[in-house]
Amino acid sequence: MRSQEEEENTKPEEQLPLVLVHRPPTFDFPFRRRLQAHFRLLDPFDSPEALSRHAQQVRVLLCVDPTPISADLLRRLPSLQLIVGSSAGVDHIDLSECRRRRIAITNAGAAFSDDVADYAVGLLIDVLRRVSTADRFVRSGLWPLKGDYPLGFKERLANSDILIACCALTEETHHIINKDVLKALGKGGVLVNVGRGALVDEKELSKLLVHGELHGAGLDVFENEPDVPKELCELDNVVLSPHCAVVTPECFEALEQLIVHNLKAFFSNQPLRSAINL
Amino acid sequence: MRSQEEEENTKPEEQLPLVLVHRPPTFDFPFRRRLQAHFRLLDPFDSPEALSRHAQQVRVLLCVDPTPISADLLRRLPSLQLIVGSSAGVDHIDLSECRRRRIAITNAGAAFSDDVADYAVGLLIDVLRRVSTADRFVRSGLWPLKGDYPLGFKERLANSDILIACCALTEETHHIINKDVLKALGKGGVLVNVGRGALVDEKELSKLLVHGELHGAGLDVFENEPDVPKELCELDNVVLSPHCAVVTPECFEALEQLIVHNLKAFFSNQPLRSAINL
Repeated sequence: MRSQEEEENTKPEEQLPLVLVHRPPTFDFPFRRRLQAHFRLLDPFDSPEALSRHAQQVRVLLCVDPTPISADLLRRLPSLQLIVGSSAGVDHIDLSECRRRRIAITNAGAAFSDDVADYAVGLLIDVLRRVSTADRFVRSGLWPLKGDYPLGFKERLANSDILIACCALTEETHHIINKDVLKALGKGGVLVNVGRGALVDEKELSKLLVHGELHGAGLDVFENEPDVPKELCELDNVVLSPHCAVVTPECFEALEQLIVHNLKAFFSNQPLRSAINL
Repeated sequence: MRSQEEEENTKPEEQLPLVLVHRPPTFDFPFRRRLQAHFRLLDPFDSPEALSRHAQQVRVLLCVDPTPISADLLRRLPSLQLIVGSSAGVDHIDLSECRRRRIAITNAGAAFSDDVADYAVGLLIDVLRRVSTADRFVRSGLWPLKGDYPLGFKERLANSDILIACCALTEETHHIINKDVLKALGKGGVLVNVGRGALVDEKELSKLLVHGELHGAGLDVFENEPDVPKELCELDNVVLSPHCAVVTPECFEALEQLIVHNLKAFFSNQPLRSAINL
């Protein structure tokens, strides 16, 4: 006897459940091939006419990266019942339209939690102890020229007020970390943002950092990625990284498991994991 | 009645216990003034003739930084009984001469432990998650040009074999982390060195890193500081910092307390803290 898995693997492609892939032009999942063993992936980048041909019947959309899902796109998919997201945030999706249409959404759940937590700690220690600044200093050949102790390496961790932003970006949390919050953190305060850029009022943050009214910041996310305020790039009490806290093999592995589970669950009427409360 | 402290503070300087300061030309303790309330500090950089005038009677030498203490220097101080060191390591001191002369030595004890541990974790996360590399990438303006996911951000921490070098440098530990140890760590291995540069065979380390036979390294110390092997500066899996793991206000505060304690203890025949076993 053949297992269900083998059965699925030998099905002709057109008998597999249809999943529309929505992705940026520059990136696809490393585990795409394995998904294709179970699902018929419809990728407009592979066959540009695919979307128009199948738009009426698509029930599931797999969103790679936080690729925007507008009300416009949703209107072209009248049968859509589920969006399987691959990021923790869902701010790239028109949620009110999903709510109206009762389209379910799942996100990355806890797939990224461990690695983002590690990264947040890394950013924090880096800001407080200026690891990246030290690395720049050594690489640029300044150590033999300027001698010891050139930098104001600071603060034991316990001495700082630390705010780690890692919540979802919604209408309610947009600029939740505003001038008042940052001023309350004060001159000894450190902000780490591994959530979404727009959680923070970036202009106010930049001003306070430039004027020394905040001790430092470790930022993995920005309001207008990939654009980063130039004034931040000049500062030594800031550590900047290109939205990469989750980019590890382990995150992708956990994500693959979750996505496969949710797609299979949907097509067999089983409960979804990490469904977003709309 | 006046307290003992006040009594001391009002003593004429020449009645205070004599302590010879041995320091590099570019650095002195930030807490020097407070030491001068209790001790008569003799600094050859202040008065070049002081050493020759007082060399015969000096009983205590306060060593700022790991400034070399040679057998030659010790021979010029025939009454020396105690060296109060300010670093964790004592490899800058001619230990066999101290042993022969029964000169006691104290080091920084645990004054630096917390901050060095923080820094080691910072280096480790930085190497594994490439925080400094990410920071360089963003600052150099490459993010908008190269797009997302340009770097191979790696590994959850638990997947790596990690060796943190933080022991003292002695004859026995010189190059204790040699080619064999590094090869045993293997391609997934990460070395963090917050001890002394010469604990590691730096040439072998550089070779293995260049050839990808070691995952990465976070180095705060080097064999020939401030010279760092140029090939290390080219690598993205290496984080380099200029021997600054201990350079924090809190470390200096803890060190001040320890040094004041040990100097007072010596002059009042009390037991020393953090005495080195010779």
